[in-house]
Amino acid sequence: MDSQFDVIIIGAGPAGMTAAVYATRAGLKTAILESGAPGGKMVKTYEIQNWPGIKEISGADLALQMFEHCTHFGAEYLFGEVVQIENEENVKKVLCQDGTVYYSKAVIVATGTKERLLGIPNEEKYTGRGVSYCAVCDGMFFKNKTVTVIGGGNAALEEALYLAELAEKVRIVIRRDVFRADPIIQDRILNHEKIQIIKKHIPIEICGDGQKVTGIRLENVEDRSCVDLETDAIFPYIGADPCTEFIQDLNILDERGYILTNEKMETSVLGIYGAGDCTHKILRQVVTATSDGAIAAQSATSYIKG
Amino acid sequence: MDSQFDVIIIGAGPAGMTAAVYATRAGLKTAILESGAPGGKMVKTYEIQNWPGIKEISGADLALQMFEHCTHFGAEYLFGEVVQIENEENVKKVLCQDGTVYYSKAVIVATGTKERLLGIPNEEKYTGRGVSYCAVCDGMFFKNKTVTVIGGGNAALEEALYLAELAEKVRIVIRRDVFRADPIIQDRILNHEKIQIIKKHIPIEICGDGQKVTGIRLENVEDRSCVDLETDAIFPYIGADPCTEFIQDLNILDERGYILTNEKMETSVLGIYGAGDCTHKILRQVVTATSDGAIAAQSATSYIKG
Repeated sequence: MDSQFDVIIIGAGPAGMTAAVYATRAGLKTAILESGAPGGKMVKTYEIQNWPGIKEISGADLALQMFEHCTHFGAEYLFGEVVQIENEENVKKVLCQDGTVYYSKAVIVATGTKERLLGIPNEEKYTGRGVSYCAVCDGMFFKNKTVTVIGGGNAALEEALYLAELAEKVRIVIRRDVFRADPIIQDRILNHEKIQIIKKHIPIEICGDGQKVTGIRLENVEDRSCVDLETDAIFPYIGADPCTEFIQDLNILDERGYILTNEKMETSVLGIYGAGDCTHKILRQVVTATSDGAIAAQSATSYIKG
Repeated sequence: MDSQFDVIIIGAGPAGMTAAVYATRAGLKTAILESGAPGGKMVKTYEIQNWPGIKEISGADLALQMFEHCTHFGAEYLFGEVVQIENEENVKKVLCQDGTVYYSKAVIVATGTKERLLGIPNEEKYTGRGVSYCAVCDGMFFKNKTVTVIGGGNAALEEALYLAELAEKVRIVIRRDVFRADPIIQDRILNHEKIQIIKKHIPIEICGDGQKVTGIRLENVEDRSCVDLETDAIFPYIGADPCTEFIQDLNILDERGYILTNEKMETSVLGIYGAGDCTHKILRQVVTATSDGAIAAQSATSYIKG
């Protein structure tokens, strides 16, 4: 098997798969390396209503369509978990966990983020069936229903406000009796008629009917008493982390581990690009990821072709 | 008919239509105003191979799919050619050519660009059938064929190099005997074995078989003699202009008329956003336009909801 490429794309989510389409159409010898199923976070999304041109599609189906497209122009799809990129003169060395080494002129890192999980029973089982890590993606499915947000930071409170425009009732569950979020957003939460705040509780179990979420069990952090609440959805916002540990040495990450790029998706290392959710950016959506992938591939093409 | 909206989106290309999906899903009362057919530049593209998830689709079909999606969540689709936006305190007044006035809290301008045409016989007839204004979009269709690029600026020469990776032969036709492009790219053109340069000629007619382009007629600018050359494709790169004349007064354009935005797609005028090809940006593609549209709608939502 050949191990030399013009460009190696790490991660087969929407950013990486779009980069593969653009790179191969520009004539680059392209590999896409993925350690799991293709599709990235799309695979975890039950239904997508905001991919332009398709009113409703399962995340898994959209992932499959993009996967079939991404290899159509000759990109090689390879399984492998990248553990390091060595930036040598004129060549990037991409090392995988199983010891395989690939070489390329350019690398596009599109590894996405990993949600911090609640780590409680039934969380994985109901992901995409009431448990969602993306209010913008899935909030609409819970119009006029009851939803529960877990977390007290800015992201949690912003998402709670977003959900309150759609849902009938929004609960926010926080561990402490104060929010970590900025005062300005706290004020809006506290004065919102649809939003109820449950302080000093932590989620300990997700309840469901086998098909979808029906409730959540909370524990009082002081007296450890439990309470079961009915809810149609649970949105944990206790944070997400970019999957960028393997490139820590390259000095291209912000303090939270997101890849810093310019508008060409170039990092400060020549020939290494970032794309999608793992980069420092404003909005993490399928459309924004695909855009990054196209731009990164175009920049890699310009770099390689001189 | 109601004329008050939360957000008015001007232009129903991929940027505007995606903004409509995102704005309505976020609960905004949304109108999308277009003076022509929905789809923008997609409608002029014979085949699209780089829209993620679809190996091949006609531009018109993709435009139709996005059009059906963009009104699905309640966006109102209105015909109208906007001639001015008045930015009054807390309200934007959107004036149309026919005298209609709409009011909104936010406006997203997604009006695209207008290619400068060659202005010669058969140009319109063969647009999408050999005449293309986008090498990245359509170059692949002319693999191992002969293509002709019109123009001598940076864009023309960059596209010629891009096409030379795919086509068997690339001709560049320029009016003068020197290029306007930067020396560094001229060197690459002059040393490229696949590229032939025809100086001191201008195109005067596109030739075809009724279905597709077969050749081009050039005129010598000195002795006015004519020559007919066979070619499978013609890529005019004599420039494109953003459709932003109607917002010249707002002071949000760069020197070429493109809308200046930050990464949130905000302009310097509160509540007015830019999205898609009409903005100052790196790469003008359907994916990058949709990304802009999503971000602009998200920013408008944050602005309107406080």
